[in-house]
Amino acid sequence: MATDVGSNVSDARRPRGVAVLGSTGSIGTTALRVLDRQRDRFRVVALTAFNNAALLAEQSARFQPSFVGMVQNGSEPHAEWGVGTACLIEAARRDDVDIVLNAIVGSAGLDATLAALDKGKRVALANKETLVMAGELVTAAAKAGGGEIVPVDSEHSAILQCLAGRPGVDVRRVIITASGGPFREWTPDQLASATIEDALRHPTWRMGRKITVDSATLANKALEVIEAHFLFGLPYDRIEVVVHPQSVVHSFVEFVDGSVLAQLGVPSMELPVLYALSHPDRISDSGVPQFNPVALSPLTFEPIRAEQFSAFSLGVAAGRKGGAAPAVFNAANEAAVALFLDARIRFGDIGVGIAGALDALGDLPGDTREAILAADAAARRFVQEGFAC
Amino acid sequence: MATDVGSNVSDARRPRGVAVLGSTGSIGTTALRVLDRQRDRFRVVALTAFNNAALLAEQSARFQPSFVGMVQNGSEPHAEWGVGTACLIEAARRDDVDIVLNAIVGSAGLDATLAALDKGKRVALANKETLVMAGELVTAAAKAGGGEIVPVDSEHSAILQCLAGRPGVDVRRVIITASGGPFREWTPDQLASATIEDALRHPTWRMGRKITVDSATLANKALEVIEAHFLFGLPYDRIEVVVHPQSVVHSFVEFVDGSVLAQLGVPSMELPVLYALSHPDRISDSGVPQFNPVALSPLTFEPIRAEQFSAFSLGVAAGRKGGAAPAVFNAANEAAVALFLDARIRFGDIGVGIAGALDALGDLPGDTREAILAADAAARRFVQEGFAC
Repeated sequence: MATDVGSNVSDARRPRGVAVLGSTGSIGTTALRVLDRQRDRFRVVALTAFNNAALLAEQSARFQPSFVGMVQNGSEPHAEWGVGTACLIEAARRDDVDIVLNAIVGSAGLDATLAALDKGKRVALANKETLVMAGELVTAAAKAGGGEIVPVDSEHSAILQCLAGRPGVDVRRVIITASGGPFREWTPDQLASATIEDALRHPTWRMGRKITVDSATLANKALEVIEAHFLFGLPYDRIEVVVHPQSVVHSFVEFVDGSVLAQLGVPSMELPVLYALSHPDRISDSGVPQFNPVALSPLTFEPIRAEQFSAFSLGVAAGRKGGAAPAVFNAANEAAVALFLDARIRFGDIGVGIAGALDALGDLPGDTREAILAADAAARRFVQEGFAC
Repeated sequence: MATDVGSNVSDARRPRGVAVLGSTGSIGTTALRVLDRQRDRFRVVALTAFNNAALLAEQSARFQPSFVGMVQNGSEPHAEWGVGTACLIEAARRDDVDIVLNAIVGSAGLDATLAALDKGKRVALANKETLVMAGELVTAAAKAGGGEIVPVDSEHSAILQCLAGRPGVDVRRVIITASGGPFREWTPDQLASATIEDALRHPTWRMGRKITVDSATLANKALEVIEAHFLFGLPYDRIEVVVHPQSVVHSFVEFVDGSVLAQLGVPSMELPVLYALSHPDRISDSGVPQFNPVALSPLTFEPIRAEQFSAFSLGVAAGRKGGAAPAVFNAANEAAVALFLDARIRFGDIGVGIAGALDALGDLPGDTREAILAADAAARRFVQEGFAC
């Protein structure tokens, strides 16, 4: 099969070039498993990692990409590798890249997303913080550059699959499911003394450490509500959350005629990654475990305990407020989670830090990239200094 | 708004003309509730009933259709009403009819379906027996006449909604849900002595008597498997059934990438009727109860007990066999259920009658309308005479 990498020839049979940003992380390694099975459809043309040089070298040998980049220049990366944060943008803008899988954790992924959309590429977005902190800018960049954002989050992938090309005007509301995390049934007293090990013990999903803590605080669900607002253009009144401990139903969409569609499956990130690459088509793939409703029975649903999980309520309120408030929420959360994972604050302090940052900085403007990055930096400083005293 | 009824002007804003065949039955009255709410989109132009003259007169006064027909000319129908089975075909073929909602119970609906498809109309099909007994003929008639068949059965409506215009080649399998009926947990001994009242006590759906008994024997699920085979062009190996006592998930579709979509909702026939009229669009409607996953929790799934419910296994085997076997299955089942509802045979005898008819007549040819009607008549006679001795 002709690959024609780097040319502008539009050939449906040409494998699409994929850049995997964050290739050594949880989503990145999952994506490379999928891409390995789908080599006739997709070609890995760029890989970037934060600092795991050994795994990056191994991946590079296996996929032979035309570009490799490492953000943190630690233990002698290969001479031909790009280095520093600029390598993310370089990978995202390359001519031989059709799809940028942005699996970077946190706000560091923003500029790569903007760069890819500016060049009219598809961004398969696992880096939800990008949309949360700068949703207006990112959606505007997609419109201006002709790019598109396709979610990799399982919940948003589910919503996109339920929509199947139908216009948003047909949607009455979406209901995002939440596992409830490891603390779903904990009392407020128990929650206050939760340890790092407790928080990292997610009941249904195997993920990176930061997002696993976000799942324990339910900050993750607030990020997803804001993400859904920007991805699907839905007002916050039409985005709900329900706790579903089994994580089998990945989300619901209710249409204007009262009908509800859901997307289901054994928890696995392989499908959302594959669908973000193939959308709106489906590609035959054997990697997703066979669906067996009898084995997955029963499926249960509970209200979310918003009053017990302040990070969730604070995040949704920040989304509704708009401006820089979502960026402040996201940055304060990142800073507080980092302190918690360093054993410098308690689990209950994460919400305290977010609330303080939003009180102090929630009214900042968020209309430019610079304003958002300033709010982001201010929120991090606020949390770090607030807990330093 | 210009109505232009009877003209061939194609005006998207013109309300579409609907003929409701079987308007006084369970589905028919549900359909008229929906159509009453959607008068700006649809206009009832024809109504037919079997013999309920009082209700038909009331419906006729309310909707002012241009044609009214009654099959059984009992207590002096109105002078201007069509009478006899011919009135079904007359209603189905009228120029002012765009959509024929076929809600006739049993094989009596076949000719009306064929007539409507021959004239290129949409058939909103609640009369599943039509497809079961003559699936090859009906699908061929749709192709030849340019008509289309849109299911009203909740399970098949669910599958159609999950497909949302995607080609069948994307489907790995469909999983039809079954409530399991009133006898889901009954032992074989209990089943043998089940009464008419027991069989009519359906746990989740309020329906007509014949289909309610079919739900108790699970013959209904076999009819639905055969219906799905013809509606979606799927081989039997890719059609499965799972018991789901709550009847909230109306069916699943598994795609080639392993993803599963489901359509859900409180059991109500209003949505399948509305969707059969509006497909592929959705129309804003307030008739369907609001979806609340917490109130509907838990959702459970069990294997179907095929060995306990011989009508199910016999029906699926008849579908796989093809020819006139599905028509023999359907007719033998109709005859046996009628005898059961007349208290002339026991519940367990329904399966015995079907098995006998399929043994004796299952190899008959089914390639023409006449052959199918002959097999249908032979199977009815076989069951009636078999139990007469």
